[in-house]
Amino acid sequence: MAPPPNFNLNCPVPITGQDHVTLAHGGGGRMMHDLLERIVIPAFGNQPLESRHDGAVLTAEKSRLAFTTDSYVVRPLFFPGGDIGTLAVNGTVNDLAMCGARPLGLSAAFILEEGLPLATLEKVVASMACAAQAAAVGIVTGDTKVVDRGKGDGIFVNTAGVGVVEHGLAIAPTSVRPGDAILLSGDVGRHGVAIMAVREGLQFDTTIETDCAPLAEPVLALLAAGIEVHCLRDLTRGGLATALIEIAESSRLHLDIDERNIAVEENVRGACEILGLDPLYLANEGRCVAFVPAPEADKALQIMRNHPVSARAARIGQVSEAPASLVTLQSQIGTRRILDMHSGEQLPRIC
Amino acid sequence: MAPPPNFNLNCPVPITGQDHVTLAHGGGGRMMHDLLERIVIPAFGNQPLESRHDGAVLTAEKSRLAFTTDSYVVRPLFFPGGDIGTLAVNGTVNDLAMCGARPLGLSAAFILEEGLPLATLEKVVASMACAAQAAAVGIVTGDTKVVDRGKGDGIFVNTAGVGVVEHGLAIAPTSVRPGDAILLSGDVGRHGVAIMAVREGLQFDTTIETDCAPLAEPVLALLAAGIEVHCLRDLTRGGLATALIEIAESSRLHLDIDERNIAVEENVRGACEILGLDPLYLANEGRCVAFVPAPEADKALQIMRNHPVSARAARIGQVSEAPASLVTLQSQIGTRRILDMHSGEQLPRIC
Repeated sequence: MAPPPNFNLNCPVPITGQDHVTLAHGGGGRMMHDLLERIVIPAFGNQPLESRHDGAVLTAEKSRLAFTTDSYVVRPLFFPGGDIGTLAVNGTVNDLAMCGARPLGLSAAFILEEGLPLATLEKVVASMACAAQAAAVGIVTGDTKVVDRGKGDGIFVNTAGVGVVEHGLAIAPTSVRPGDAILLSGDVGRHGVAIMAVREGLQFDTTIETDCAPLAEPVLALLAAGIEVHCLRDLTRGGLATALIEIAESSRLHLDIDERNIAVEENVRGACEILGLDPLYLANEGRCVAFVPAPEADKALQIMRNHPVSARAARIGQVSEAPASLVTLQSQIGTRRILDMHSGEQLPRIC
Repeated sequence: MAPPPNFNLNCPVPITGQDHVTLAHGGGGRMMHDLLERIVIPAFGNQPLESRHDGAVLTAEKSRLAFTTDSYVVRPLFFPGGDIGTLAVNGTVNDLAMCGARPLGLSAAFILEEGLPLATLEKVVASMACAAQAAAVGIVTGDTKVVDRGKGDGIFVNTAGVGVVEHGLAIAPTSVRPGDAILLSGDVGRHGVAIMAVREGLQFDTTIETDCAPLAEPVLALLAAGIEVHCLRDLTRGGLATALIEIAESSRLHLDIDERNIAVEENVRGACEILGLDPLYLANEGRCVAFVPAPEADKALQIMRNHPVSARAARIGQVSEAPASLVTLQSQIGTRRILDMHSGEQLPRIC
């Protein structure tokens, strides 16, 4: 490992005008990016980390491995369609899938707050076991810590995942090419609205459930069929818009999106209108975008639609050279606008 | 993965008479064992987890991999000789080393409390980078979450680690054999006393520093020299005594320890006497025990003593058949007693 480049312990430059952590630093938007770019990545500087992907690809003798981690601090712990446990398993399975990796094993580390009912831990652990079984992966190692009452929030879960990369592709934003088709695996915004509805005590005609689900199957099916997948990204904090902006910036290419092809369920759209939220920026936990060469797009869509989790896959846009590093969106009424990264999440602690 | 055995969501049996999480559940002692045995392991049940080792060994094509995780919630964040960052790197490097694995990559996941000074994060990140460099491993992937003020405690760090197992041994408590020599890599109790001294504002003639350090080098040297290592265990929460009791219980063998060969620094012993602490139960972060066949013990000690981190390695006991599952300690004055597992850590949030 090279010595940390550009790292200055007494860095005099405040992070976007702040010298304390704010909730927006955890939101997956511009402020979190600044925090990572200015403090974390320079200090840890190494090739896998600098690829700015959600997982690292490591080489162990003759195997290529994917390795990823996420902590989960979602509030409330339980919500329609899932809980912090399903989220913790599917989120990490999905980060492995975004490397095109087959999950090999997960870890589970709990930070429990003194006073947490053990029944709550049991429910979370049961959800994790169930989600792991559905994703055909074992939770093979773990850790438990307890913090004093008032120093945590019930339960935080960290999962890390190791997967085997069985293909020879470099699946990464830097592999995206002009002419690529951009595929979206399903409707967007459900996870964000499901959480928001519980937090705010909102009632809709039908309960909006999280889309939380494992994406490994359709991704592995694409690879097994020989689709030349250039890039995959799951849509978590910051939603579809932030994922696309990150990829446009990393690839220095232009992503041209047609909003009319982005599915948003009617009740999600209604909730967004009432609450003033933009579904393109809402977190999802079972949705991804895939970048594939345009001639393979139809075949890829067919494969994705064979799996329930991505039955509503659609082509939402294409990649071109210019204007570089930008995402433009053709709206429902045909106007075109540039998508900007928000400074933080619309909803803190969404995952 | 098999379906979770014996798992009952509405388990009517309270955990050691409790139905809420207490600080003792995080202490590495009997109560944490009960929590894991009754709630976590049955739900996740699979072979690597059931080996009850600190890391899992996974097979990826032709490689054997070690995989481990720990969260760090130590209080205070900074203490003599280290901080939460050095702990987070060395702790996970050591768990990999205890599988006999060469570290391949670490993850770093931060749960930050709103309001944390960014300078604190910078210091922790710099310590992690420094410790990772010393252990010759990269921090290759990560995650950052922020929780509201009062729902965290400054900064919690989770690290997971992946390592390559280059030997063909089964290093595990179940590989321990009657006749094995028990080697201890150095003096015990310093990490626990270092933390306690800061918390309580105690002053000693000389500052007691944590022993936090990476153990990969001496362990890999033992394996490179062809020593038939049966079991390795680092001494963290619960200290030397708890590690030995866990191994005695897993192997169903008797560990006979001579306290006179266990090094405890004079100032650590003094502090323990004042504070009523037992150095055998105090946490260490750079110490381990190794179980090797008796004929190889002298060679193994020589190898360990060649490395600064284990320069004071000593033979502290041997393994016999009976009384099964027990650790007996011959004390300084020649009497013999049975070591019992405490219900929790003497000092909560030690790591």
